[in-house]
Amino acid sequence: MKPYIPGEQPPPGKFIKLNTNENPYPPPAPVVSAIQSAATGPLNRYPDPMATSFRRAAADALGLPGPEWVLAGNGSDEILTLLVRGFVGEGESLRLPYPSYILYRTLADIQGANWEQVPFNDPWELPQSFGENRDDLKLVLLPNPNSPSGTIVSKSQIAELSNSLDCPLVIDEAYADFAEENCLDLVQSNDNIFVTRTLSKSYGLAGIRFGFLVAQPHVIAELTKIKDSYNCDAISIAAATAAMGCQDWLADVVAKMNVTRERLTVGLRALGFDVTPSHANFVWCRHPEGKHAEIHQYLKQSQILIRYMDFPDWGDGLRISVGTDEQIDACLLMIERAMQSLNLTLPARADST
Amino acid sequence: MKPYIPGEQPPPGKFIKLNTNENPYPPPAPVVSAIQSAATGPLNRYPDPMATSFRRAAADALGLPGPEWVLAGNGSDEILTLLVRGFVGEGESLRLPYPSYILYRTLADIQGANWEQVPFNDPWELPQSFGENRDDLKLVLLPNPNSPSGTIVSKSQIAELSNSLDCPLVIDEAYADFAEENCLDLVQSNDNIFVTRTLSKSYGLAGIRFGFLVAQPHVIAELTKIKDSYNCDAISIAAATAAMGCQDWLADVVAKMNVTRERLTVGLRALGFDVTPSHANFVWCRHPEGKHAEIHQYLKQSQILIRYMDFPDWGDGLRISVGTDEQIDACLLMIERAMQSLNLTLPARADST
Repeated sequence: MKPYIPGEQPPPGKFIKLNTNENPYPPPAPVVSAIQSAATGPLNRYPDPMATSFRRAAADALGLPGPEWVLAGNGSDEILTLLVRGFVGEGESLRLPYPSYILYRTLADIQGANWEQVPFNDPWELPQSFGENRDDLKLVLLPNPNSPSGTIVSKSQIAELSNSLDCPLVIDEAYADFAEENCLDLVQSNDNIFVTRTLSKSYGLAGIRFGFLVAQPHVIAELTKIKDSYNCDAISIAAATAAMGCQDWLADVVAKMNVTRERLTVGLRALGFDVTPSHANFVWCRHPEGKHAEIHQYLKQSQILIRYMDFPDWGDGLRISVGTDEQIDACLLMIERAMQSLNLTLPARADST
Repeated sequence: MKPYIPGEQPPPGKFIKLNTNENPYPPPAPVVSAIQSAATGPLNRYPDPMATSFRRAAADALGLPGPEWVLAGNGSDEILTLLVRGFVGEGESLRLPYPSYILYRTLADIQGANWEQVPFNDPWELPQSFGENRDDLKLVLLPNPNSPSGTIVSKSQIAELSNSLDCPLVIDEAYADFAEENCLDLVQSNDNIFVTRTLSKSYGLAGIRFGFLVAQPHVIAELTKIKDSYNCDAISIAAATAAMGCQDWLADVVAKMNVTRERLTVGLRALGFDVTPSHANFVWCRHPEGKHAEIHQYLKQSQILIRYMDFPDWGDGLRISVGTDEQIDACLLMIERAMQSLNLTLPARADST
C-alpha cells in the first residue's frame, strides 16, 4: 500500500511555504485568547465528546438549523476517514474525480476497499458518468473547489448528481470559503449530500487540526457512533469555537487572499504559463515547454516550496499556494530566474521594449 | 452496532467526578506554559506530522533506544483504532479478556471484524487459552492494569503469551504509571509485544487527547502509513512534550494518588465492600448484598459520579476513580448514607461500640 504523502513541512521560518495551501496570515486574536484561557482550564478532565460549543457556533455562523447538523473532527482528514469507514466496506468501492485529492484513494486502500477514478473532461468539467450507480459503489467524493485545479463544479450539477446516485455524495469544501458559492443549502434539501469543511485553510488554523461535517441529523447521529469518543481536545474546541465567531475577520482575510491570487495568476501568465482560473487559495499552472519538476527543484534550492504534481496518464504541473503579496512576488521572481536558468522562453517584458 | 458509551461528562464544577479515571490534580505548570507559548506560534502552519519533539522526549523519559520506537496519537483511543484497522481485516478476529475494556469490541464491530472474549479466572488470572492461536486471530489486546479490576498480569506471563501467539499482543498500559511494573522492556526483546500509553490519566491531561504506542521501529513505520497525516495538533504536541519532561512531578502525583487509593480501599472495606486490590487509579468493589445500581444512583443524585458496570454473565459492581482525599471522604460518606437508605448491613463502627 502506498501511503498518502503530504507536502513537506520544513523547520518553520527557513522557507517560503507555498506548497500545502496554508493561510499565510495568523489566526484572529480571539482564537489565541481562547487557547490561552483554555490552557488554565480543567485539562485533567476529558473534553466534551460532542464539542457542543463548537457545533452551536458553527450552526450560527453558517445559518444551519441547529448543532445537530454538525459533527466536529480532528481535521477534515478524520471526518473523511470516518466517512470511508462508515460507508465503504472491504471489497466495496468509492469514486473520486481525476486529477483530484489523492488521500481518498489512500483511505480506500487502508479500508481494503476499491476506488474508481472518473477523469474530468477538459476543461475540468465532470462527465455525467460521475453520477452513474454501481452495485458496489458506496460513496462518492468530490472536492469543490477541486485540488490541484482550483476549479468548481456548479451547484446545479451537484444537485443532479446526487439525484441520480443511490449512495452519499460528499462535497469536500476545504477551499469553499475562497469561492463564490458552496453546497451548504443543498445539504438541507438532500439527505445524501454531505459537506466537509476545515479550519486549516481559510481560518489560518492548520496547526490545531479541526474540521467538521455538515449533514442531516440522522447521518450525524450514525457517524457519531463510530468516531473516537473524545476525538477533539479541549483546546482545539475552544479555538475552533472562537474562530467561528470571527466571520468579519474571515471575510477580510479571504478578500485579501483572493486579490493576491489574482496577482499570482497575472504574474504567472506574464511569464508564459497556462493558469487555470482558481476559486481556491492556490493556483494550478503549466508551462507549454514543461520542465515543471526542474522549476520546483530550482525554487526549493532557493528556499521557496511549491508543489510539483505529476498525475499518471494525465500530466504534470505546479500548484502554488496563495501567500502574502511579498511571498508571491518573491516566488514569481524566482520562477523567472528558474526559467532563464532552464532556457525556457521568456516573453518580452513590457519594460524592456 | 452498539457504540462505546464513555462515562458521563457533566458541566464542569457541579459534580465530584469519580467515574472516568481522570487525574483530580491539574497538569504540571510547564505544560500550561508550553500551551500558552504554542498559542502564539505558527498555528496557520500544519503541525509536525510525526510529533518529533514528543517522540524524542518520550524516548528519553522512558529509556527507549530512540524516537523511532514511539508513535504519537490523538489519545490512545486513536492508537487502538489504528492497531485494529492495521491488523484486523473484515471477518478476522481480535481477542480480549473479560471483563475488560469494552471499547475493543466496539472497534472490532466498526471494522466488521469479530471479537472473542476470554474470561479471567477467579481471582483475575488469565487462563493459558488466552495465548492459543487461531487462523483468523490477528490481534490480542490486554489492558494491564486491567479495567474495571485494577489487577495486573505478570510480565513473565505476558512474555509467555507473546511467545505462544503468532499475532501481536497489545498491552494497553493506560494505568501502568500507577503500578509497580510495566512491559516497556519486553517491547525491546519481542517484536510482537506493543505497549500503548496515554497522558489522560497519570499526567492529568485528558483534555488534550494524547496517547502513544511503543513498538519496534518496523511496526511504527508500517502504522505511520495508515494514520492521518497530521493526527496530532501543534498545541497538544507542545503540551505532551513538556509533560514528558515532568517525571519528578509524575512520581509525586502518582505516589499521592496511590496513598489516596489505599484510603479509598480501607474505607470501602470498613463499609463491608469486597475491594479488589488495585494497581491503577481506581478501585473495583462489590457489596455482598448488591444494590450497586441503586448506590450509584443515590450518589449521582448527590452530585457524586462513580461508575456502575454490569457485565452480562459475570456480574455488576462499582468502579470508583481515585480523587483527592476530600473527594474520596465525601464519596465514602455518601456511600454510607446510600447504604443506610437502601437498608444494606452496615458494619458496627469502632467509634459507636
